[in-house]
Amino acid sequence: MSGQQRMSGVLSPVVTPFKADLSVDARRLTEQCRWLLTQDCGLAVFGTNSEANSLSADEKIGLLDALVGAGIDTARMMPGTGACSIPETVALTAHAVTLGCAGVLMLPPFYYKGVSDGGLYRHFAEVIERVGDSRLKIYLYHIPPMAQVPITLDLIEMLIADYPDTVVGIKDSSGDWANTKAMLDRHWPNFAVFSGNETTLLDNLRGGGAGCISATANVNPGAIAKLCREWRDPGAEAQQAALNEIRAAVAAYPMIPALKEIVAHYADDPAWATVRPPMVPLTAEQRSGLLAKLAGLNFEMPGLAAAYA
Amino acid sequence: MSGQQRMSGVLSPVVTPFKADLSVDARRLTEQCRWLLTQDCGLAVFGTNSEANSLSADEKIGLLDALVGAGIDTARMMPGTGACSIPETVALTAHAVTLGCAGVLMLPPFYYKGVSDGGLYRHFAEVIERVGDSRLKIYLYHIPPMAQVPITLDLIEMLIADYPDTVVGIKDSSGDWANTKAMLDRHWPNFAVFSGNETTLLDNLRGGGAGCISATANVNPGAIAKLCREWRDPGAEAQQAALNEIRAAVAAYPMIPALKEIVAHYADDPAWATVRPPMVPLTAEQRSGLLAKLAGLNFEMPGLAAAYA
Repeated sequence: MSGQQRMSGVLSPVVTPFKADLSVDARRLTEQCRWLLTQDCGLAVFGTNSEANSLSADEKIGLLDALVGAGIDTARMMPGTGACSIPETVALTAHAVTLGCAGVLMLPPFYYKGVSDGGLYRHFAEVIERVGDSRLKIYLYHIPPMAQVPITLDLIEMLIADYPDTVVGIKDSSGDWANTKAMLDRHWPNFAVFSGNETTLLDNLRGGGAGCISATANVNPGAIAKLCREWRDPGAEAQQAALNEIRAAVAAYPMIPALKEIVAHYADDPAWATVRPPMVPLTAEQRSGLLAKLAGLNFEMPGLAAAYA
Repeated sequence: MSGQQRMSGVLSPVVTPFKADLSVDARRLTEQCRWLLTQDCGLAVFGTNSEANSLSADEKIGLLDALVGAGIDTARMMPGTGACSIPETVALTAHAVTLGCAGVLMLPPFYYKGVSDGGLYRHFAEVIERVGDSRLKIYLYHIPPMAQVPITLDLIEMLIADYPDTVVGIKDSSGDWANTKAMLDRHWPNFAVFSGNETTLLDNLRGGGAGCISATANVNPGAIAKLCREWRDPGAEAQQAALNEIRAAVAAYPMIPALKEIVAHYADDPAWATVRPPMVPLTAEQRSGLLAKLAGLNFEMPGLAAAYA
């Protein structure tokens, strides 16, 4: 039954390339998505690390159209569509569903703090009713360090009680394994739990989770996807340790500009390093430190330079 | 010189009325703005307590057009125009300037946390350059409890150094008088410091501040405006004490639904109580407790019912 399909494996919150005038660069984004798919990595475009909340609703709709128009596989796409307002969330979500995206990753409304689970339930329910399409598959996005508005276990249970075929999973970016484990331990039927990064991937898969959606999947997608496929194998612990080493090297720097510097370097395409305010680029010192550390780990992005050649 | 004009006195972050289907109600908003102007209260529409971050950019532009089309005085208007993205902030800000609004109240981009003053400077500078209109007058909006992204004294000094005729004031909703006082003590030329609520209004005016922009100005505007005019008079302390009593009565409840229940009650117009998710209405018990407390304080909203008759 198509209603029972859930996304799984590794997805990347694809970094968004900008031109020199800070406008979005659909061509480079398409190339990057094509390369990620060759690495068996799905496309959570418009995530936190995509600078999605520095893009307008119109820019996101335009980029989605460009990606789908270029033939990017919608079965591997989980665009972020959660905005602060119901109308904007509905517009982007409905557009993603119409284009055939297999899922959407949905932030809670994140301006007002201290709101109740009941109020958040009403927000999500209103979005679902207005989109009004059985193809809609929502993966909730729990990221309290940024949103400051949590998606609690109680809220999840309220939503899946009323919308079991629509609210089908979550990305847990709490950074708190106990929270991820608590969700797994509820054993909600057909509910896909994604880790917010790959450092808990093996634990998550062993506990019945679906995979991970991770910033560093922008640069290390193939190795993360491999562990998603081989987590039952004897070498899984060693694979996890190697993933953690790369992750730590990148996470020592501000994440978004670091990811873009890495792509720029390995694609030999300096334009990739551009960030939109309020982000700032890495300093020259940070950049050289990051790249030296990765070189020391024999880090590679196989096929990336060829994708841009 | 028109370049030296600054807004002052009391402004209300006007609560936004919704119809039963949660769409915005331009007619009721216009009536409310007309009434506030009769109380000598300016119009900071699209503030935090306007549920502005639960409105789409298109809804805000439509409401601005409706207000100005209905003849509301743009010299008294300071709409909130700060969004997370540069394109949306520019679009709404430019529209407000074109319509002739005397100022705009601008949030920082509030999704990404832990961003640098340098990154925030680049955001505001980019907005100013793109709007590219000498009529633009920005009042920065410092509200760390909600935005979680502060506007520091250093950032203000960076901005007024480069844009002294554009960045002309601030609303300090930190709830920290020491921060407001620190801004006053810098004596930035022609820089208007507004308190985030009326409980520090007298202190702020005595320190050289411009006035206040306060949630409770939605319901108690006339008395707050009176203190703005009479703060040098012997009765000022007593006026301040009376304002604080009303403020405390309202602030004992969730602010946005409380304000709307008060307007609904004193306008005899129950539709005003509708809030948009993630806000939730007051319970019946909260509502009766709030209204009983205000009645006990002989609270009135003079002329409001007539405005809706």
